[in-house]
Amino acid sequence: MEKMRTPRNHSQSFLESVASSEKDGYSSTQSSHRLLAYSDALISIIATVMILPVAHTKFQDNEELKQSIQALLTTKVAVYLMTFLIVTVAWAAHIRLFQVIERIDDTLALLNLACMMLITFLPYTFSLMATFPNNTLGILLFCACVMVIGLIQALIVLYGFSHPFLLNDQIQMSENQAYDKRRILEVIMRVPIMCLFASVFSIIFIQVSYIILAIVIFLPYISQCLKWIRSKAIGGQVEDSPDSVPFYTYHPSEPLSKERVESFSDGVYAIVATLLILDICEDNVPDPSVVKKEFDNNLIAALQEYGPEYLAYFGSFATVGLLWFVHHSLFLHVTKATRLMGLFNTFSLAFVGGLPLAYQLTHEFPRGSRNELEAVQISCVIIFFAGLFQLAMWVTALFTERETLHPYVRYGGREHAFMLAKLSLYPCVALGTFVFTCVLSRFSTSIFHMMEIGVPFAFLVLRLLVRVALVLLRWLFCPARNDLDSVPVEEEDSQLPIIDIVT
Amino acid sequence: MEKMRTPRNHSQSFLESVASSEKDGYSSTQSSHRLLAYSDALISIIATVMILPVAHTKFQDNEELKQSIQALLTTKVAVYLMTFLIVTVAWAAHIRLFQVIERIDDTLALLNLACMMLITFLPYTFSLMATFPNNTLGILLFCACVMVIGLIQALIVLYGFSHPFLLNDQIQMSENQAYDKRRILEVIMRVPIMCLFASVFSIIFIQVSYIILAIVIFLPYISQCLKWIRSKAIGGQVEDSPDSVPFYTYHPSEPLSKERVESFSDGVYAIVATLLILDICEDNVPDPSVVKKEFDNNLIAALQEYGPEYLAYFGSFATVGLLWFVHHSLFLHVTKATRLMGLFNTFSLAFVGGLPLAYQLTHEFPRGSRNELEAVQISCVIIFFAGLFQLAMWVTALFTERETLHPYVRYGGREHAFMLAKLSLYPCVALGTFVFTCVLSRFSTSIFHMMEIGVPFAFLVLRLLVRVALVLLRWLFCPARNDLDSVPVEEEDSQLPIIDIVT
Repeated sequence: MEKMRTPRNHSQSFLESVASSEKDGYSSTQSSHRLLAYSDALISIIATVMILPVAHTKFQDNEELKQSIQALLTTKVAVYLMTFLIVTVAWAAHIRLFQVIERIDDTLALLNLACMMLITFLPYTFSLMATFPNNTLGILLFCACVMVIGLIQALIVLYGFSHPFLLNDQIQMSENQAYDKRRILEVIMRVPIMCLFASVFSIIFIQVSYIILAIVIFLPYISQCLKWIRSKAIGGQVEDSPDSVPFYTYHPSEPLSKERVESFSDGVYAIVATLLILDICEDNVPDPSVVKKEFDNNLIAALQEYGPEYLAYFGSFATVGLLWFVHHSLFLHVTKATRLMGLFNTFSLAFVGGLPLAYQLTHEFPRGSRNELEAVQISCVIIFFAGLFQLAMWVTALFTERETLHPYVRYGGREHAFMLAKLSLYPCVALGTFVFTCVLSRFSTSIFHMMEIGVPFAFLVLRLLVRVALVLLRWLFCPARNDLDSVPVEEEDSQLPIIDIVT
Repeated sequence: MEKMRTPRNHSQSFLESVASSEKDGYSSTQSSHRLLAYSDALISIIATVMILPVAHTKFQDNEELKQSIQALLTTKVAVYLMTFLIVTVAWAAHIRLFQVIERIDDTLALLNLACMMLITFLPYTFSLMATFPNNTLGILLFCACVMVIGLIQALIVLYGFSHPFLLNDQIQMSENQAYDKRRILEVIMRVPIMCLFASVFSIIFIQVSYIILAIVIFLPYISQCLKWIRSKAIGGQVEDSPDSVPFYTYHPSEPLSKERVESFSDGVYAIVATLLILDICEDNVPDPSVVKKEFDNNLIAALQEYGPEYLAYFGSFATVGLLWFVHHSLFLHVTKATRLMGLFNTFSLAFVGGLPLAYQLTHEFPRGSRNELEAVQISCVIIFFAGLFQLAMWVTALFTERETLHPYVRYGGREHAFMLAKLSLYPCVALGTFVFTCVLSRFSTSIFHMMEIGVPFAFLVLRLLVRVALVLLRWLFCPARNDLDSVPVEEEDSQLPIIDIVT
């Protein structure tokens, strides 16, 4: 930010210098780091918040869970997942925008805040749409929000291009800046224009507007998917535009700011880990008068009623915390995030968001009931998928490992086996627990609790376990080469020089 | 983290290298940046969450606000403020700890997660304590949590000192590492030992244990305050220990990680800005059957009932967002944060946490009622103090400006006047609105709404306003020197070379 300031302000008066800094605008240029961190925090909170209406649905004990779950699945869970998707689409657009605009000033900061205000309002308009699908008001409000967000983004781009020192260095150096500007504006304005059509159609024929909205969200991905499949099937012939910027392409390998993926994920993990304590703090402090009357002033007896909820809290905090830990370990080894990895990350986070709900369900039903068994199984399924999509990120990264991974975790690298063990621990444990609860359905809760307690310790001794497993593997498959350690050196040697270059 | 790895692993097999990296432990060493960001997010959520029980208190319309407010003040608001204080004390201890331990490995990450789990449970034990002040259970639980947190911290320190490459470079180089270790452990273990006493006394004589707890929290600050006042009164004689590390001193100018202050503040601002949308998403989507029955399928009519709540949401989002904006501008110019600035920041954030509640109150009462007037006035008071403590941070920074501020915002620097205007806008506006509502009590809500709408625009044109004000000042006080711009050059020149050094 400093390098932009010209030295011509020397020997001007204080008042003059304030005025001149207003004219050239350089001194107010700022790094956008903290603005983006704050935006990520806001968006991650909003994305996960729609799990609350689902979590606060009260189940009657005599009712079978299956029916409640079906009622949930049809409306609230669908709303939660769709909101999560829409908010992350808005977040992806925000990342694209601020990969183009790398420095900010006060005007951009204020415009961004206005944009954030409308993004945080999206979940509400969306839940209106879901509750009243045949009413035009929901869709009109939603479209209005999206259109204003698009206009603000266009305004930010125009402002950025009229103050070129705010732009990404690559674009700043680019010779066809005007072309870049037009292309970016076209991509950005596509969404508000489609929404304008959708809102016009909503008055005439509401189904059409829903189709338009679906197209708005999914079309770039579908078209890219088709293009990618076609290029793979026909072979080669990748259209490369070396002079244009790598943003706004919707290509699966389009770079995604790794820092922002991390801070968005941190926000989701943090709010999900604390969701249950919010409820506990609000609801689980008994009324003094009740304790006096019903429990004869015995606070411990009164609190024992809430026992399972504390267990649910610690269980969900530990699981979310450890999933964060795995994510953290994974991203330590990632050097560059791509859009496809971002997509898997979003899926993983969407499942993580459902975890507190699942844990709460586990402890809400009477012991040994059919409901409880199903709640335990749902928890296992959620943990399984949350972990599986983390693994998918790792596999995606391995496909382009030369670009996306640190050398020492690449296939055959030093930390490869350990990372794999970390990533596969939760999916394996969840799958195992699921199978056990199917077989030994009477002990399902005990098995689940054992898993909750056991997994953190498994992580603590994981390094040891991996070492033992590797020794066992070596002993099983190549017992003859037990003293011939130098055999796989060729494979290793091709990797190691790169480490030295990087470090 | 890379510089620690020794190159002696060349030409070892994959299996061997995994085993050897286990032995030396270097390759698993990680930067602690993201762990700390995640911890900050968790702690900031927990700190602000206790406003929810306050916000969800329902007021009867026929009841006078004054009585409700008094009932609130005595319990819930006190619990909120005390919890905020205690959690920030735990946060400060966490900062101290990870200023000593600068790199982490998997074991430390897992220990930190366990520590976080207990910190997030603190508000609950505290609210038990507040609801049942005469029951030992609350205080026992609280002390147990604090003791376990202390033990984990001690464990982290011991682990850090037994793996010296994890430590702060200054301590790593220090010759009396054993002394540093003992001193740090003494400071850390002081709190759990006091809590042990408190929990023993709680069984015998409960008042004593509350006094002990108060001493635990406030004593370091009080003793430092007294020491500082004494040193100022007597003059000089500052005890300096050049060989010891600058951490764990409780001195007001003890360095505080600027990055962590920022990310903690971001967390609080983000969760506070979205608190109202949580409520709106959960409560303000009307039931389709109700809309059909009562409003004749007219959704707009049904939603009009919630009108004031949307206004409250946008109002509070804008105010919190702009206060964040001011905070952001301030910390752009701060080079080093001190413990005293951190304290003012905490106070400011505690008031910010109360904002959504105040805005909700403003729109909950019938128009023109006495309650509404008081709610508006309370909002003004909260905004005033939130802004005032931000201003206090700036003033504190100016006292030691050579160390804590960028040269170009120091007194007389280029951006000084503009920064001052930004910081004083909210306190001035809040004070003005408060005075106006006292004088023109009939129009209080209109005045308040005008403020809500006007302030964001005021920020947009603030640079222009400051410029006009400076020109006016110059014209008023030194009209003769209007054409003599070079007079205050001496003052400016002494500053400008520093800019060049920095940039």
